[in-house]
Amino acid sequence: MPRVSLTRKVRFAAAHRYSRPEWSEEENRHVFGLCANPHGHGHNYLLEVTVEGEIDPVTGFCVDLDALDRMLDERVRQPLDHQHLNHVVPAFAPGGAIPTSENILAYLWPTLAEAVPAPARLVRLRLHEEDGFHVDFVGGEAASAP
Amino acid sequence: MPRVSLTRKVRFAAAHRYSRPEWSEEENRHVFGLCANPHGHGHNYLLEVTVEGEIDPVTGFCVDLDALDRMLDERVRQPLDHQHLNHVVPAFAPGGAIPTSENILAYLWPTLAEAVPAPARLVRLRLHEEDGFHVDFVGGEAASAP
Amino acid sequence: MPRVSLTRKVRFAAAHRYSRPEWSEEENRHVFGLCANPHGHGHNYLLEVTVEGEIDPVTGFCVDLDALDRMLDERVRQPLDHQHLNHVVPAFAPGGAIPTSENILAYLWPTLAEAVPAPARLVRLRLHEEDGFHVDFVGGEAASAP
Amino acid sequence: MPRVSLTRKVRFAAAHRYSRPEWSEEENRHVFGLCANPHGHGHNYLLEVTVEGEIDPVTGFCVDLDALDRMLDERVRQPLDHQHLNHVVPAFAPGGAIPTSENILAYLWPTLAEAVPAPARLVRLRLHEEDGFHVDFVGGEAASAP
Amino acid sequence: MPRVSLTRKVRFAAAHRYSRPEWSEEENRHVFGLCANPHGHGHNYLLEVTVEGEIDPVTGFCVDLDALDRMLDERVRQPLDHQHLNHVVPAFAPGGAIPTSENILAYLWPTLAEAVPAPARLVRLRLHEEDGFHVDFVGGEAASAP
Amino acid sequence: MPRVSLTRKVRFAAAHRYSRPEWSEEENRHVFGLCANPHGHGHNYLLEVTVEGEIDPVTGFCVDLDALDRMLDERVRQPLDHQHLNHVVPAFAPGGAIPTSENILAYLWPTLAEAVPAPARLVRLRLHEEDGFHVDFVGGEAASAP
Repeated sequence: MPRVSLTRKVRFAAAHRYSRPEWSEEENRHVFGLCANPHGHGHNYLLEVTVEGEIDPVTGFCVDLDALDRMLDERVRQPLDHQHLNHVVPAFAPGGAIPTSENILAYLWPTLAEAVPAPARLVRLRLHEEDGFHVDFVGGEAASAP
Repeated sequence: MPRVSLTRKVRFAAAHRYSRPEWSEEENRHVFGLCANPHGHGHNYLLEVTVEGEIDPVTGFCVDLDALDRMLDERVRQPLDHQHLNHVVPAFAPGGAIPTSENILAYLWPTLAEAVPAPARLVRLRLHEEDGFHVDFVGGEAASAP
Repeated sequence: MPRVSLTRKVRFAAAHRYSRPEWSEEENRHVFGLCANPHGHGHNYLLEVTVEGEIDPVTGFCVDLDALDRMLDERVRQPLDHQHLNHVVPAFAPGGAIPTSENILAYLWPTLAEAVPAPARLVRLRLHEEDGFHVDFVGGEAASAP
Repeated sequence: MPRVSLTRKVRFAAAHRYSRPEWSEEENRHVFGLCANPHGHGHNYLLEVTVEGEIDPVTGFCVDLDALDRMLDERVRQPLDHQHLNHVVPAFAPGGAIPTSENILAYLWPTLAEAVPAPARLVRLRLHEEDGFHVDFVGGEAASAP
Repeated sequence: MPRVSLTRKVRFAAAHRYSRPEWSEEENRHVFGLCANPHGHGHNYLLEVTVEGEIDPVTGFCVDLDALDRMLDERVRQPLDHQHLNHVVPAFAPGGAIPTSENILAYLWPTLAEAVPAPARLVRLRLHEEDGFHVDFVGGEAASAP
Repeated sequence: MPRVSLTRKVRFAAAHRYSRPEWSEEENRHVFGLCANPHGHGHNYLLEVTVEGEIDPVTGFCVDLDALDRMLDERVRQPLDHQHLNHVVPAFAPGGAIPTSENILAYLWPTLAEAVPAPARLVRLRLHEEDGFHVDFVGGEAASAP
């Protein structure tokens, strides 16, 4: 059997800040550099969502793209676009997880894995925070099988 | 042993239309949306062809790139560039397969897998229909071993 | 006074065909090459619309971007996206103008020039038909002042 | 005499927020949409700086690119990168100018125009806030001749 | 009358070196930095050639693109692609002009201006040496009217 | 356990030449084409370095990006940027390996694999020599376990 996947791009512009409240300003500056600036900064995030599925012999699609788009709009764009991640995502509030690309993907994986239009399934997330690097995330079985 | 692959890009501009003749116009519109418009529309397709091979110790190449280019010209660009896929590919004629990115790759895989310059072998196809998404296809063993 | 302009991108996927019905097939092939293929082919068109305006001291905008987007949706995307230009634009019907990038811009200029949200004004259109070239169009006074 | 210009790209990631404190939340939401969200959001800004000069017959350069880079580092990257524009630029503090692309360029023009390595001179600024649009700014004579 | 132009991209990969033989190694290093390294380095050059013309009412073209492509192949790609500019262009031999982007465009302008398919005319050259900057060149009347 | 990787891009502009001194000029031309030109040509190389690691629960990083950048600067940019690969890399001297993308990656893999900031580990290298193709390299166990 061939393996077929579709990768959809979704964009959101957001602010974030890296800081551990239990550390001194010097420690934060040492570990997080400019990302520790007090009011945050921002990025045009580009998320790539890869889902795997069989090709439907009637429609020729491996996933219902309209349904996938609606899901990504509800679970990625509406909650995150034009927002400050530390303020709107409880997991990234002060004292919580740092909103790095790695943690943003760890946060998104379960909510996207459970909502990909069946029978397609989530197989990879990739997040570009800026042009110079990106992070890939492939969740474990437990995460993708609610 | 290291694993080495080369990915070549080839472009073709083509028109296509999504329609099942056994369905009503409403059904086609419901499932295929604007892609069901009667005269078709088009895209600048970008195909990425990944072949795996050993590095030749004399030339430093893992595949004969000139031979690969000639093959892709014969089997991708000449038959598909500046064409309407539903009209020139019998598999995509009315009542046949819908020319989605998934089905275009399923159509191309066997013809490319058998013609990659040996001893390199085809390991993945990726098709970008527009900037917002792409489809990956990895064929089964039968397909790649003529 | 400074000169300030904003350039908005809008995309549409469309098919087109180049053919003069008063010419023989050989003549059409000679002048238009693959673009004369009978059923047309297609592109992911990228249109750049440049409007000039003064910066509003209260909002900081040189044009109402939401109003510009609605206008471009009505006058570019809705009529042209996922369409075959020779079939849906009467000016490009057989015997009419050839739907080259040049003529597509000449066709769009008057309808966009009259509808740019005042007091901003249209100053340039640029159309990318594929990655290798683009066409710029700046209409005359008569065209932009209905 | 030929006209020669060099365009240098410089990038900065920053947060911003659009809000007029003298307006109600509803008015701000109506005019600024999601940009009025209370904690701001962010972008990967790409600034293009175009300077014009004669070609030095000895070096072949129309501007001292190292000197231009140092100036852009001091006057663009150091003050703006990884910052929240409303917090670090007094002109964009609450009640001041809205940090739109238009106003960011109006703010940058005088400071860049006076510091371009002579005898080259600033002739245009272009700011990309996201992929979908950009703003061009050409300052008046007074601004460029301190 | 509207103003219409077409911009064609042409690519060439080439090596170059910056050095004035009448200077000491220290002077060369001071002015040219890494570009003074003895054996040269290289780039994927991207040249944008803009020609202006009237739209032919029969074909819809403002320039004969095939003829333009043949000319660019003869006058840009064949002489420069996969070459070391200091070795193959006499004007860039030791003691001659430094092969900066500015000087490459000054070298190309006359030969391209005289060969653009009439009645179209060359109106601008743009050269990208790498992603971070580009140079624009508009030649004088004498240069474009041999 | 999820699998997390970060891919960092690093660029270098370099010249290279393909030639086997034990072959005649005709043989070199036949196998290597324009790449056999005597003085070399060049490219803007783009290297993508993918490292895999666990997400640190305190910092949210899967690798120390600053340390990774310093390593890539020392082991990629400083030795290769603005250089002629056949002249500065002994492995690519006349009679040695041909500096193809495949061999450049085989050369870089051991030196990068041993220096990736622990506990992250190198899992893939990708090299873009020009826009039209790229090469991927995944080294064997011996290479990555010094």
